[in-house]
Amino acid sequence: MPSSSSDSTEGGDVALQSLNAFFNPRSVAVIGATETLGFGHVPTKNILSHQGVKTYLVNVKGGRVMGVDVFRSVRELPEAVDLAVIMVPSGSVLEVVKECAERGIRHAIIESAGFSETGEAGARLEREVVAVARANNMRVIGPNCVGVVNTSNMFTTADVDVATLVKGGVALIAQSGVFGTALVDRACSEGLGLSKVVTLGNKCDVDEVDVVEYLADDEETKVIGLYVEGVKPGRGRRMVEVFRVASARKPILVLKSGRTEAGSRAVRSHTGSLAGSDRIFDAAVRQSGAIRVESIDELFYTAMVLASQPLPHDGDVAILTNSGSLGAMMCDELESLGVKLAALLPETVDGLKKVAPPWASCRNPVDVGPAIIESALPAVELLGRDPNVGSMIMIFGIPGIVSSPRYFGADLTPFFEILGEAASKAGKPTVVLGFGDERIIKMAEKGFGKSHIPVLRNLTLTARAIATLYKYKKIKEKNLTSKSPGE
Amino acid sequence: MPSSSSDSTEGGDVALQSLNAFFNPRSVAVIGATETLGFGHVPTKNILSHQGVKTYLVNVKGGRVMGVDVFRSVRELPEAVDLAVIMVPSGSVLEVVKECAERGIRHAIIESAGFSETGEAGARLEREVVAVARANNMRVIGPNCVGVVNTSNMFTTADVDVATLVKGGVALIAQSGVFGTALVDRACSEGLGLSKVVTLGNKCDVDEVDVVEYLADDEETKVIGLYVEGVKPGRGRRMVEVFRVASARKPILVLKSGRTEAGSRAVRSHTGSLAGSDRIFDAAVRQSGAIRVESIDELFYTAMVLASQPLPHDGDVAILTNSGSLGAMMCDELESLGVKLAALLPETVDGLKKVAPPWASCRNPVDVGPAIIESALPAVELLGRDPNVGSMIMIFGIPGIVSSPRYFGADLTPFFEILGEAASKAGKPTVVLGFGDERIIKMAEKGFGKSHIPVLRNLTLTARAIATLYKYKKIKEKNLTSKSPGE
Repeated sequence: MPSSSSDSTEGGDVALQSLNAFFNPRSVAVIGATETLGFGHVPTKNILSHQGVKTYLVNVKGGRVMGVDVFRSVRELPEAVDLAVIMVPSGSVLEVVKECAERGIRHAIIESAGFSETGEAGARLEREVVAVARANNMRVIGPNCVGVVNTSNMFTTADVDVATLVKGGVALIAQSGVFGTALVDRACSEGLGLSKVVTLGNKCDVDEVDVVEYLADDEETKVIGLYVEGVKPGRGRRMVEVFRVASARKPILVLKSGRTEAGSRAVRSHTGSLAGSDRIFDAAVRQSGAIRVESIDELFYTAMVLASQPLPHDGDVAILTNSGSLGAMMCDELESLGVKLAALLPETVDGLKKVAPPWASCRNPVDVGPAIIESALPAVELLGRDPNVGSMIMIFGIPGIVSSPRYFGADLTPFFEILGEAASKAGKPTVVLGFGDERIIKMAEKGFGKSHIPVLRNLTLTARAIATLYKYKKIKEKNLTSKSPGE
Repeated sequence: MPSSSSDSTEGGDVALQSLNAFFNPRSVAVIGATETLGFGHVPTKNILSHQGVKTYLVNVKGGRVMGVDVFRSVRELPEAVDLAVIMVPSGSVLEVVKECAERGIRHAIIESAGFSETGEAGARLEREVVAVARANNMRVIGPNCVGVVNTSNMFTTADVDVATLVKGGVALIAQSGVFGTALVDRACSEGLGLSKVVTLGNKCDVDEVDVVEYLADDEETKVIGLYVEGVKPGRGRRMVEVFRVASARKPILVLKSGRTEAGSRAVRSHTGSLAGSDRIFDAAVRQSGAIRVESIDELFYTAMVLASQPLPHDGDVAILTNSGSLGAMMCDELESLGVKLAALLPETVDGLKKVAPPWASCRNPVDVGPAIIESALPAVELLGRDPNVGSMIMIFGIPGIVSSPRYFGADLTPFFEILGEAASKAGKPTVVLGFGDERIIKMAEKGFGKSHIPVLRNLTLTARAIATLYKYKKIKEKNLTSKSPGE
């Protein structure tokens, strides 16, 4: 739980208090709790099985659900819970929200769909819900979402497999529940550590601006990744203010859809969002110090790199590879992104010549070809010591026969582990590109994983992640400079 | 083996005959054969264990290697073999090539490195090798490569695990051996079916123009994927001619590195290639009807899609998704690439409304949200029948809890299999994007695999592959039109 708020604005403090119960409720009412397989089942199960939260189930049908007595109405609850999770049909939501307000409940997640995303009637209903919430100082996430995930207490209102959640530094904000769930699933499958996840749905109240403000103070969150379909009218200026303050502390990655005419039409029928002018959005993001990414995979892997690696030292990128072709392609990508290759010191080149075979290329990219197993460790140490090197990319396209039981059957995990330690010791951000045989890439993941060095499989995204490390370094330095006289 | 050459030019016929022994030799001499772990070991083992090829091992040291008697010199061989695979140190290569020429050997793969990629002395040596080869009507692949893979007879001179090779329609041409090997390994790991692979190394004789000419007539090759670091001086015009003829029959995907200053420097020290002006290369490729791709992943997955899917019907793309966000992002990508979304017929939309829940979006993209399991099959059938739909993208971001044994534990493989059958029956090219839980994506791969429908994990590359299907359709139509009067 975020503890310090000494450096936040007053507005920040209010938002912080205000959203905290969504992630750390002591008591929860699950309204529309159900054992029936379908909408509502998994949140009911996940919330109910959480040991640290006092949970009440509510359903007009009464009876028992998952072995627990069910209250017929919010009115019957013995206490005003911290959080109401509402999963009743859209036609009943307004009534439930009123009851919650009357009971003094101040936080609600409305998972039900059937609001502004469906047309004018739904939009009207949504406005009525908001009016009740506003009048009663109630914060609402949704509707049309699956709410939150918090890995620090493993509390979730979402359709996710709690047992597979991996704790980490990346917070994700999505709009719809389906996509938010798929993002969490992907993070679980690929071992991306998450801190908090919020799906905002139609954003009738809480929006990405509120959540970023909250996450800026969240100590467990190192990187904020944001997928957005549109910003609510009138929130642009506040977005820039909040993102600017947050960006000074941690990187914010923004992926927006509705960039094109076809995309805009699609988001309108999805969450009722107005994608707005992409050019204006882009300018606002740029101004705020947040970083726009171009694809969901870029969001995913860049967040992975930012959360695990330090910022670059002064100096440019050094590439160590066993494949000249992959090295050349990486050079192309980096130069296209405006990232420079480090000019290695003469003593580094001389050192490399001593540890690499005569046919190796000891300039940057350092291409040791088939001598990778013998040469990689001293090469990493030399590059790590070179003050012109600010970050490192290691590229491994090691033939599958090396680990195939039908050929050499070598376990390369210890090799990668030692390289990871050496890179880690240098303290410079390092990203590994694994290309080719999947067994060997898995060994790389395991070996480098010990030093929290990410292994990516996509060359373009590896280059883009490194570029973003440099970009964020500049944003942070600029922020510090512009603040130094005032703070 | 390519049989018909009735429709090729005379030059084509010569090239065809000329390269065939590289892929289908009846007899091979492995020169520099060795049991020692390291350079030469795996090719020796792979060639020796091939049942259909008469293999002679040659090594100046004589003795026995892998249980087989070794000849001390090419001169001692009992016959003029179809193919010599040369793996001796660079200093001995010229002598070996001379001996091969004297014995009447007409095809040699030189795997040894230490030639033009190392500087002027190596370049001189390489020129001397070429002079001997030319004077003796010998074709040479290499030096500085690992030669070939042919999955139709499982013959290979490369450092690959023969047991994992998957037969299929994609031919790959790479420059260096390390990268070519990594490409083959990746294809094996991801189940991309290969026909033939060639690594060209320094291209002292055989280059990509020769190989594309050969592969244009190869019946097993449906798609040619080419990674190139530079075209040999003076070969530009012939490249355009050959690629144009080949493109009329099968798509050629071209990835070139050395696009930038940094990339050019890297390729120079890698295979001694001059990357040349990227703009001129780009124009030449465009003129020839080959399709340039931007990344190795794009080459890989686009080849997978082109090899497995028919060309689009008249009509545009239909998207079926359970995630509105992923649908919107796909719209953005497609529009950015100039690919249009199909305007569905009113009867299709009406049909979709009948099979989808009221809150589903029945325009294109068709977003059925959590109703995907019930609605997908009738939706695919409806889209398949709509004449405005020329191709389909299915997007699945199905929550992991559906298949998790801790929750619903469903096996979705049969579901995906039925969808694949329905899409296949429609005869329209279909690509699946799997996003989220890896267990479910693997089920999709298995289910759709039965209908040879590829499942990709990257949204951008899915869109790019679909765009390339349309692009190639246009190229083919243009080619047919421009030829019709003359042929």
